[in-house]
Amino acid sequence: VVLPAGDDLGILKWNADDLLLVGTDQVLDGVHFDSSVHPPRAIGRKVMNRNLSDCAAMACLPAAAVVTLALPRDRGIDYAKEIYLGVQEAGDVYACPIVGGDTASWPGKLVATVTIFGRSHGIEPVRRSGAKPGDIVCVTGPLGGSIRGRHMTFAPRIFEARQIIAGGLAATAMLDLSDGLSRDLPRLCAASGVGAVVRASAIPVHEDAIELRRDGRSPVEHALHDGEDYELLFTCPVDRAAPMNPNHRTLPFVQIGTVTAEPGVWIEHDEDRREPLEPKGWDHSL
Amino acid sequence: VVLPAGDDLGILKWNADDLLLVGTDQVLDGVHFDSSVHPPRAIGRKVMNRNLSDCAAMACLPAAAVVTLALPRDRGIDYAKEIYLGVQEAGDVYACPIVGGDTASWPGKLVATVTIFGRSHGIEPVRRSGAKPGDIVCVTGPLGGSIRGRHMTFAPRIFEARQIIAGGLAATAMLDLSDGLSRDLPRLCAASGVGAVVRASAIPVHEDAIELRRDGRSPVEHALHDGEDYELLFTCPVDRAAPMNPNHRTLPFVQIGTVTAEPGVWIEHDEDRREPLEPKGWDHSL
Repeated sequence: VVLPAGDDLGILKWNADDLLLVGTDQVLDGVHFDSSVHPPRAIGRKVMNRNLSDCAAMACLPAAAVVTLALPRDRGIDYAKEIYLGVQEAGDVYACPIVGGDTASWPGKLVATVTIFGRSHGIEPVRRSGAKPGDIVCVTGPLGGSIRGRHMTFAPRIFEARQIIAGGLAATAMLDLSDGLSRDLPRLCAASGVGAVVRASAIPVHEDAIELRRDGRSPVEHALHDGEDYELLFTCPVDRAAPMNPNHRTLPFVQIGTVTAEPGVWIEHDEDRREPLEPKGWDHSL
Repeated sequence: VVLPAGDDLGILKWNADDLLLVGTDQVLDGVHFDSSVHPPRAIGRKVMNRNLSDCAAMACLPAAAVVTLALPRDRGIDYAKEIYLGVQEAGDVYACPIVGGDTASWPGKLVATVTIFGRSHGIEPVRRSGAKPGDIVCVTGPLGGSIRGRHMTFAPRIFEARQIIAGGLAATAMLDLSDGLSRDLPRLCAASGVGAVVRASAIPVHEDAIELRRDGRSPVEHALHDGEDYELLFTCPVDRAAPMNPNHRTLPFVQIGTVTAEPGVWIEHDEDRREPLEPKGWDHSL
């Protein structure tokens, strides 16, 4: 960082060996958080962690970020500062500075937007489009029930993504699970021109999903459809997933299925019974 | 651009000789535009041009941008596309591609946010902090009355900024006039640790400001306080402003005052009469 926030633009020097990765993501009051419940610092952390999760999804390292706030008229500058502090706290975990911002007051509800700049730093970015038939389908952690609180407090899987690749696992396609496995796996498959079969019994189910079964839907259904898990979903060749490297034993992932040449995404309940994996339309909003 | 929008992040290769400049700016319905009056394409152009104007203020070239929209529930995807087209149209003038975005639907009003990446491309970025006592204070065009329509249709002064520097004019400090001369000149002076005296008779007054005098305020008052001019305000040493270089004759700027060692910003009405230049609080909102 040559010049941090305060001028018209922030200035960065860029390493010639690094690809520059850029993305942006916003959180809206009443959609991604509830400002009557969630403190401003938690809102700041969430919008930054969503962007950091996009870095994880490409296996890059965050380098810098900028922030905008559309601030309700009845919220003062201290409230805005708390949001910025939350953004900064989340960035500090990865030494990612905030290099610019824009705050404007308005009669509407709170909108917080972060744009993130990542750098490849020795690892070729992993896209969504490289999955091959025969690859295995993996996730980095248990899914479902994030609405119980995890959607505000999750940790982006940046180090896990770097560790997976650096550990010798040749991920062919990767994304972060924000909209639920049943929505995000079809996206990965469509980008790669393949299909997939997922085994219901292999899906790691979060204890939050088990708690939520009281609503009449099974824990696995919550794991498939809830969203806001922010775990990584990736594919890789079977032979590269075998624990040839002792590091693999510590890699945090679980195989949940297999990539197929035929398009279409299936969920296999047992060997005789499979059905199309379709996003369920139920409402898990705030 | 290695990978455009569609994956988790866009990917750019970055020239090692180029500094990377980053900034962000948003427009809010009812504050920066009125969605019941202004078509979506004009809204898209405005948010992009505001960001391009920040590039002009640093004398850099835009390289890429990302966009987020918080879209009212009653607006469809076609409306969002029109906004994106407006963003793209404004970027196309400078060959600046859109490499990422995020659109979310919500019950609130429209928010459009752009983050811009600029590259120095052979010109050292001009900050706000380099003005020296004795420098002249200049603007690139007439001011005032932008609320009559120019605030939606202005052209960012990117080529003018590059031409000023490339023409041999050593600008010591620069910014784009978004909040009005009476707010923005004090910012430049504060960043540089100097003061300034502006001659009222030297300020170029836009014909829109003359039209607005019917409201009882003089055209010069409009030129000083209205805002959203998006002309460049810059300082440079007197000797470097002289037309040694024949290019200077065509450079689009007017001297309006002088930088002083003493802090404080003054407006000089005639040789005997000066007063502090203070931002007037009148409302020029939509």
